[in-house]
Amino acid sequence: MRASRFFISTLKEAPSDAEIVSHKLMMRAGMIKRLGSGIYTYMPVGLRVIRKVEAIVREEMNRAGGIELLMPLVQPAELWQETGRWDKMGDELMRVKDRHGRDFAIQPTSEEVITDVVRSEIKSYRQLPVNFYHIQTKFRDERRPRFGLMRGREFTMKDAYSFDRDVAGMQTSYQTMFDAYTRIFTRFGLKFRAVAADNGAIGGTGSHEFHVIASTGEDALVYCPTSDFAANMEAAEAVASGERGAATQTLTKTPTPGTTKCETVAALLGVNLAQTVKTIALTTENDGKKSYWVLLLRGDHELNEIKVGKVDGLAGHRFSTEAEILEVFGTVPGYLGPVGTKVPVTVVADRTVANMADFVCGANEEDFHHIGVNWGRDLPEPVVADLRNVVEGDPSPDGKGVLAIERGIEVGHVFQLGTAYSQAMGATFLDDGGRPAPLQMGCYGIGVTRILGAAIEQNFDDKGIVWPDALAPFEVVLCPMGMDRSEMVKDATEQLYASLSAMGIDVIVDDRGLRPGAMFADWELIGVPHRVVIGERGLKEGNLEYQGRRDAEASSVAVGEMVGFIKAKLGK
Amino acid sequence: MRASRFFISTLKEAPSDAEIVSHKLMMRAGMIKRLGSGIYTYMPVGLRVIRKVEAIVREEMNRAGGIELLMPLVQPAELWQETGRWDKMGDELMRVKDRHGRDFAIQPTSEEVITDVVRSEIKSYRQLPVNFYHIQTKFRDERRPRFGLMRGREFTMKDAYSFDRDVAGMQTSYQTMFDAYTRIFTRFGLKFRAVAADNGAIGGTGSHEFHVIASTGEDALVYCPTSDFAANMEAAEAVASGERGAATQTLTKTPTPGTTKCETVAALLGVNLAQTVKTIALTTENDGKKSYWVLLLRGDHELNEIKVGKVDGLAGHRFSTEAEILEVFGTVPGYLGPVGTKVPVTVVADRTVANMADFVCGANEEDFHHIGVNWGRDLPEPVVADLRNVVEGDPSPDGKGVLAIERGIEVGHVFQLGTAYSQAMGATFLDDGGRPAPLQMGCYGIGVTRILGAAIEQNFDDKGIVWPDALAPFEVVLCPMGMDRSEMVKDATEQLYASLSAMGIDVIVDDRGLRPGAMFADWELIGVPHRVVIGERGLKEGNLEYQGRRDAEASSVAVGEMVGFIKAKLGK
Repeated sequence: MRASRFFISTLKEAPSDAEIVSHKLMMRAGMIKRLGSGIYTYMPVGLRVIRKVEAIVREEMNRAGGIELLMPLVQPAELWQETGRWDKMGDELMRVKDRHGRDFAIQPTSEEVITDVVRSEIKSYRQLPVNFYHIQTKFRDERRPRFGLMRGREFTMKDAYSFDRDVAGMQTSYQTMFDAYTRIFTRFGLKFRAVAADNGAIGGTGSHEFHVIASTGEDALVYCPTSDFAANMEAAEAVASGERGAATQTLTKTPTPGTTKCETVAALLGVNLAQTVKTIALTTENDGKKSYWVLLLRGDHELNEIKVGKVDGLAGHRFSTEAEILEVFGTVPGYLGPVGTKVPVTVVADRTVANMADFVCGANEEDFHHIGVNWGRDLPEPVVADLRNVVEGDPSPDGKGVLAIERGIEVGHVFQLGTAYSQAMGATFLDDGGRPAPLQMGCYGIGVTRILGAAIEQNFDDKGIVWPDALAPFEVVLCPMGMDRSEMVKDATEQLYASLSAMGIDVIVDDRGLRPGAMFADWELIGVPHRVVIGERGLKEGNLEYQGRRDAEASSVAVGEMVGFIKAKLGK
Repeated sequence: MRASRFFISTLKEAPSDAEIVSHKLMMRAGMIKRLGSGIYTYMPVGLRVIRKVEAIVREEMNRAGGIELLMPLVQPAELWQETGRWDKMGDELMRVKDRHGRDFAIQPTSEEVITDVVRSEIKSYRQLPVNFYHIQTKFRDERRPRFGLMRGREFTMKDAYSFDRDVAGMQTSYQTMFDAYTRIFTRFGLKFRAVAADNGAIGGTGSHEFHVIASTGEDALVYCPTSDFAANMEAAEAVASGERGAATQTLTKTPTPGTTKCETVAALLGVNLAQTVKTIALTTENDGKKSYWVLLLRGDHELNEIKVGKVDGLAGHRFSTEAEILEVFGTVPGYLGPVGTKVPVTVVADRTVANMADFVCGANEEDFHHIGVNWGRDLPEPVVADLRNVVEGDPSPDGKGVLAIERGIEVGHVFQLGTAYSQAMGATFLDDGGRPAPLQMGCYGIGVTRILGAAIEQNFDDKGIVWPDALAPFEVVLCPMGMDRSEMVKDATEQLYASLSAMGIDVIVDDRGLRPGAMFADWELIGVPHRVVIGERGLKEGNLEYQGRRDAEASSVAVGEMVGFIKAKLGK
């Protein structure tokens, strides 16, 4: 490519609505252009990166046995009604009526359509397994689109759907996709981590998220540096360390006037925060009858709502109202405790709390707390459950070390769907005994356009983007110094350009005639990983100048060795 | 590719809603699957053809200096309001509201968005010319979607937009695109014709349509076999042949009871249809004041409404009502004529009528016609204009032969837009004198998915589709006979598959284990152009069997020569 035949449009400043670094840099590098809230034109530089992402995804999907098709954007409401998602999805589902008043959805994903295709195409177990995918535009009418391509409304996603005859088959298909995703993110040249994710209503461990590691990531990833354990915060199991100690203190009601938080209670009483317990009041309703629950959490721990929902009986819980709290505890929030409630409650203690002795908690009386509370003696043994987010240093649930936490950006998700969609839509096949059975499904997404944002969040410096080779809009840029004035520079540039192009290296020559500073600044901002400067002075000594995007300084390379040098840098 | 890892799903019968051959064959070959009216999933076989079309389009667009970007599907109404198309486009424009009630269009084309991009990106004549294109999904809410991909609602289009500093530049960009389109359709391996098209309000000759020739085509293409002249029916100029003869008959009113059509009048009077003239009454209104017009056409000719609209004063015409006709002519339709109207009318004669003498027309009295009507003597000389469709045998307007007509399917359109959009949207640049000037635009479309239908309408037989090599989902299919029973067949198949694949030939091996008849029928229906049968009997004699999709019989080719043979067939 020649820059004079391409479209490069860089900005010194990012627009004010760009909040995060990847959004700012993509705007400044001219990769995207805002058309509306969460809707972007992919400009030529940006589109080249998207195509590189797509090509790698496509190759690895094909290698893993995926079969590409293309499902429509505009999808009839009837299919979405079959699975109930027409109602469930709310405002995020963009809805449209055609000229005849018929309802359609603009697809945010395609479970319904692929299941519709498959229910008419797949008749027999002999046709299984099969895995269809497409790379297609999606629309999700986000309440608050932001962060450029990270949370846009219109975006590109690769979504794949596997169909199997039984659970074992589905798990094999799932593993095949997991492995393909691992190859894809490895080929991108990004630091990433696959973490177990919560599987929602389906249960089990059949769901993993793939995250690009970045300190600016929205999600907390939990992993064990000395084992394979990795999960997102929702799914990471928190285990209690050690054993419960013996009671050494007597139960004592202590005045704690105006002190409602564990931190201030601990300070007032001169005890460790880890000796305090916070009490959370929940209510459930069944056929109009209310039940009351108390959750206990160590003072320095955070509640994990997903885990709470999984406790027997708590699927439909809500936080108790102030009136309910007064009725149940006889006091106001800030002084609640499990000892001596006015009406019976079910006490659910986090695993760590269940292991505590001599702990501090509210005394169910305004301005008072209990100290020296002990299980069995002062109150019955509780229901024990995992209720909290893990913290750094927690024991790994596999018993092989302690947990660490890092930030990530979710860019892929693999999911064992089971028969949720196939049963709702009557997608069955005849098994080897001739009996109809629902198809076992999996679904597998990669946020193609989101990868761009995530890759930049991981790879940038104060000059701009630093693309890994595989994703760069161009692998190499040639910067001739005074190409229009010097035949020698011109010839050397054209020769190198021809040699690199002939080897299938994606090279652009900057023939725009800019002064060196402006030229270098553009390519550093755009993030091309390898730069060669062709100047008359160097040429007279038989040299060209190479600088990698992360290199502090340029290095001299003999003209005749440059092609091999670049080839080695690119690992080609 | 191996058929066992691909998805092939053929049908014996097409669904009943498939009216035309390409729609039927695409459904039977499993290329597309209907999701809703005019909305199709592109199944794996169909998607492969789409990708081949796209790849050729992309290569030639890039070669012609086009720069690829990608504009969004969902576009803010505000831009469409700037050009007035939000109101003008009516029901075909699919409209959607987001969660905040803001209006958006799902793009049927992208003039507004590209003009918006360019008005902020292009500041100076130094940045011109530039040509941006994208290959993107479009939606057009057709009143009556039909014919499969030929008139769908959701479809894929390549649309390009050129921007120039002046008309001469625009014309150069236009010619560049015209040439690129010629290369594209040539590479597709389709018989096609570029014809001049009507340019609407902009005038001039700055618009051409590219048609795939097919007897089933909806459009009539006019061309001169002995010159370069080619135009669509709307734009093909009809010239009069010969000179007007002298009057030889007297004007006579003749009874023609109950005879209102030229054909029956001619039969009744025993004259040639080409001696009769039909009269068409039009009305125009200006500031509430009506004017009446009479159009005259030879009895065997057809009115061309586009041409009528171009006659001075007739831009806003309509057909006269029955009440107006009675007022102007004093009689009912069927007996109208230009001689002796009750109120003044402007008579506009088609060029051919203006050259007639002794003609027959209505006498403005029920059940009577005039014979022997002559210009100058019986009525004043008319306004003369080109009002009719050409017919086979008409003189070519370039004077270099006579016209022929064939049918075509429009698959491309190049158009000189001028400043229509840039002025409406304030897209200006600074010219070399530092003065702001509106950008001169061109737009250039190719119906990517429509190409599939058009190619099939041109290339099929009673067995199925006959793809040209460049568009075929696979170039070559290998059909082993009993691959599971014979090691010899298996080895020969694998070896040939490896050799062809290594040469970049797009080959599929049918390893599904079907019996030969079913296997051959599938590939003939799908339309793979080259087939090799690998059988034990042939192998023992050192031979394979080759059959081209259009060949009546298979021919024997030595095993060692097959690769070269195929290579030659594909012209590689």
